[in-house]
Amino acid sequence: MAIKLYGKAMSTCTSRVLTCFHEKSLDFELVPVDLFAGEHKQPPFLAKNPFGQIPALEDGDLTLFESRAITSYVAEKFKGTGYDLIRHENLKEAALVKVWTEVESHQYNPAIAPIVYQFLVAPLHGKSPDQSIIDASVEKLGKVLDIYEARLTATRYLAGDFYSLADLHHLPYTYYLMKTPAASVVDERPHVKAWWEDISSRPAFKKVAEGMKLGGK
Amino acid sequence: MAIKLYGKAMSTCTSRVLTCFHEKSLDFELVPVDLFAGEHKQPPFLAKNPFGQIPALEDGDLTLFESRAITSYVAEKFKGTGYDLIRHENLKEAALVKVWTEVESHQYNPAIAPIVYQFLVAPLHGKSPDQSIIDASVEKLGKVLDIYEARLTATRYLAGDFYSLADLHHLPYTYYLMKTPAASVVDERPHVKAWWEDISSRPAFKKVAEGMKLGGK
Repeated sequence: MAIKLYGKAMSTCTSRVLTCFHEKSLDFELVPVDLFAGEHKQPPFLAKNPFGQIPALEDGDLTLFESRAITSYVAEKFKGTGYDLIRHENLKEAALVKVWTEVESHQYNPAIAPIVYQFLVAPLHGKSPDQSIIDASVEKLGKVLDIYEARLTATRYLAGDFYSLADLHHLPYTYYLMKTPAASVVDERPHVKAWWEDISSRPAFKKVAEGMKLGGK
Repeated sequence: MAIKLYGKAMSTCTSRVLTCFHEKSLDFELVPVDLFAGEHKQPPFLAKNPFGQIPALEDGDLTLFESRAITSYVAEKFKGTGYDLIRHENLKEAALVKVWTEVESHQYNPAIAPIVYQFLVAPLHGKSPDQSIIDASVEKLGKVLDIYEARLTATRYLAGDFYSLADLHHLPYTYYLMKTPAASVVDERPHVKAWWEDISSRPAFKKVAEGMKLGGK
């Protein structure tokens, strides 16, 4: 039985998992969740994820949520299939994948998420983007990307000279960021820009990006 | 050569890693970093962690940062030593440890960290706690803990009927929270309170808690 993912292709967290599925060449079924009807806050979905957020995964009798836990599970379970995202045969490389995966969670995501929200999601709710939030978040993201620029001068990808789950986790938010005026924060940093062009051109992500549209962008 | 951890016992992220060391019965050396002198923002420490945050770990020629990446590395490298924090012999249990570890990162930590900061850290910088930030964060944390209360009614610990890294990651911030008036958010929920009393009484954490003091609390 194929893995089932409950979510929406336009969602950053859903597309993070979908990209992982494609890197691993897995069969899966994407079961749409109607966010506009509030399906993710109703009992059937809450039984899969009590926090009421997409995506949720069903693999046989196992139900998981939190996109980064799902990708980590998939990368581990199918470590012998498709591209090795976690460097499972090298403890030191695997540790560096973990470090830069946590950097995405605790440094990158808190800076980039409000920018994408203000530019692309707030208008869907009839609100104007809050420029003060955008400015503060762009400044914060710029400081994070200064460190990425130095890192990517030394190694081709974040965890080393190999693409990994750490890079993959950055794809969905950065894809949306690049559709906003704040794209300059990437464009101004040559190694970050080259890294972005590299990772976003992988076939696995290009397939997923086709389904990523927020407010017509 | 023993593992070296650069940090401070009073820091939540350092104590998260120290608790993991004790659960694994590891020999280690804690190398103090003088935060008040800004040692973590100087080149020798920035060479270990470019983000300038404690802790950083040195294990032979490998240098790691981000506390949750360090605990994950330690739990994996020493999976046969001390207490098994990641259920490495059971893929499904290991996946649920990952889920609830991510819940701590993305749901619990963003709600609890501002409360501890306002009550215990802001005064160290000569500032009064900002009550509006505290109120909003306590409300957010309460909603997260409503879900924990339901979960902990079904299973003894977050990932299942076994203590794991997912529970461990909650210890340092909750320890400080319980010294503040916001402790009621835990006390009011019987299963959350019983879980807290259980996990905080483990010998590994009790050793670490002895060194955890913020502003005399």
